[in-house]
Amino acid sequence: MHSIKELQSILAQAVKDQAYPAHPAELYEPITYLMDLGGKRMRPVLLLMSTEMFGGSVKKALDAAMAIEVFHNFTLMHDDIMDKAPLRRGKATVHEKWNANVAILSGDVMLVEGYKLLSNLDASLLKPVLKVFNETAVGVCEGQQIDMNFESRAHVPVAEYLEMIRLKTAVLLGGALKIGALIAGAKPEDADRIGEFGENLGIAFQLQDDILDVYGDPDKFGKQVGGDILANKKTFLLIKAQELANNSVAEGLSKWIKATDFKAEEKVQAVTAIYNQLGIRGLAEQAMQSYAEKALNQLEAIQVSEDRKTALREFAEQLLVREH
Amino acid sequence: MHSIKELQSILAQAVKDQAYPAHPAELYEPITYLMDLGGKRMRPVLLLMSTEMFGGSVKKALDAAMAIEVFHNFTLMHDDIMDKAPLRRGKATVHEKWNANVAILSGDVMLVEGYKLLSNLDASLLKPVLKVFNETAVGVCEGQQIDMNFESRAHVPVAEYLEMIRLKTAVLLGGALKIGALIAGAKPEDADRIGEFGENLGIAFQLQDDILDVYGDPDKFGKQVGGDILANKKTFLLIKAQELANNSVAEGLSKWIKATDFKAEEKVQAVTAIYNQLGIRGLAEQAMQSYAEKALNQLEAIQVSEDRKTALREFAEQLLVREH
Repeated sequence: MHSIKELQSILAQAVKDQAYPAHPAELYEPITYLMDLGGKRMRPVLLLMSTEMFGGSVKKALDAAMAIEVFHNFTLMHDDIMDKAPLRRGKATVHEKWNANVAILSGDVMLVEGYKLLSNLDASLLKPVLKVFNETAVGVCEGQQIDMNFESRAHVPVAEYLEMIRLKTAVLLGGALKIGALIAGAKPEDADRIGEFGENLGIAFQLQDDILDVYGDPDKFGKQVGGDILANKKTFLLIKAQELANNSVAEGLSKWIKATDFKAEEKVQAVTAIYNQLGIRGLAEQAMQSYAEKALNQLEAIQVSEDRKTALREFAEQLLVREH
Repeated sequence: MHSIKELQSILAQAVKDQAYPAHPAELYEPITYLMDLGGKRMRPVLLLMSTEMFGGSVKKALDAAMAIEVFHNFTLMHDDIMDKAPLRRGKATVHEKWNANVAILSGDVMLVEGYKLLSNLDASLLKPVLKVFNETAVGVCEGQQIDMNFESRAHVPVAEYLEMIRLKTAVLLGGALKIGALIAGAKPEDADRIGEFGENLGIAFQLQDDILDVYGDPDKFGKQVGGDILANKKTFLLIKAQELANNSVAEGLSKWIKATDFKAEEKVQAVTAIYNQLGIRGLAEQAMQSYAEKALNQLEAIQVSEDRKTALREFAEQLLVREH
């Protein structure tokens, strides 16, 4: 079994080796550009870790891992258009560097390239893997739409928020792990369990992200601390605060959400103070821990020897104590 | 074997039977809206005709035929955003009726829905069919990008134009026919031939479209006659005219292309007169006939009894004597 670092370096090489046609340049250059921006390659790493846990080989699973990474980057390319995001990993987004039409069409071909990578699988694996991949892809699109719909709603129930992050973020982690298991020939119930592990881990991961936006160490957190607060982003923290706040606290929160003229620092401090008053951080950490436990319970139940599970367990534990 | 009308009615029913989730509505309603706008369903009809020619059953091929139709409509949804088209079959385009973000994301999920339909195929067929589908999809995206690039170029060589329409229009016809053949268990060389038949027919079809824009019967042609001329669209006719025109004729053509203040009718008449002077219609018809012949020669070479080929031969012949 490979270490995470080794898997990352195998994937870095695979990304480097991916050659697209030179023509038409507007279609293929953005793919290389976006894929080369880097990142931790968490999703394909998880896929390969799952394959290895179930005794399969990285070689056999590499194309599927790359398919997941290409798919993930396709969603970033299109989401960035929809979110009008100027930057991705500190560099200009594709629609900024080229234009929206290029980002639409290059993204489309990227999704097809994901399927091309998948189609290299053995014929006997293709059908079950394709089924998981398709379900995953549909889930991610649904999650993005639901997230966009949240923007125009004043209040979102916590349950709906959790379902949104499950779709938008978590199903892709679950799908990657499940595909890795299928390629290794895992039993169907174990493939389901590693998928559930990934989904629950993904939800915990997103909740952690919501917490870090407010309570992260500014020196270690990559983004601006309080960015979600400034954007009125409906995170677990804001939604929970809106649910719990009464009277003057509710009014104070509502005032800051509607405010148009303020110092950024002041708004972040004031909303954070409301969160503190309501004990939101503790509630968010509780929710996160509960999903993390569900994840680890699924891992526990999988019928492979304990030492094979160590890597994924440690990965999960590290993910949830991160400060950035 | 079914008649084209019967196949169209089978497909109409299949479109009607396609049920998408109710939620999120912005993701799925546009798919139903666009699919319900109708059309001749030429691509899935060709797929089913090919299956029947090679002795396969419509039932077995129906999901793949629907995959092709869903894919085709996905390209329309995204192309309409890129082309800023307000209308599609006389109704508001998806990005006009909803917005561009909805059209991007709904189109994305539509592409995945196409793959979901494909994944219902027998495991033994999935790999070869997926390969053709992926190549087709990539070709269509490349064709759209090359077409967009043409807009900012003063001159396009005829060969590049023919390659563009091959990718943008013809490979999907070829791909549909080839997939139909694979599902029926046709020999690989016959599957290739029916694919070539479709590609050549598709190029002939597009050249016919270019001719009809200028020389079509205004009462029968669905669109405004001369629409391509008014938009300075680089069709076979304009490209050929730019290639052949000398001196004062070239100047006249160039003047009309650059003109910003004119009566629509006058421009259409003047450019048509230049085409007539240069014998462009005859050249375009010659090119069209040559691709049609190539198509029919491929059909000829296929190793099934002649009576099984009648339907596709007649389809091709009718396609190329249409007046609208």
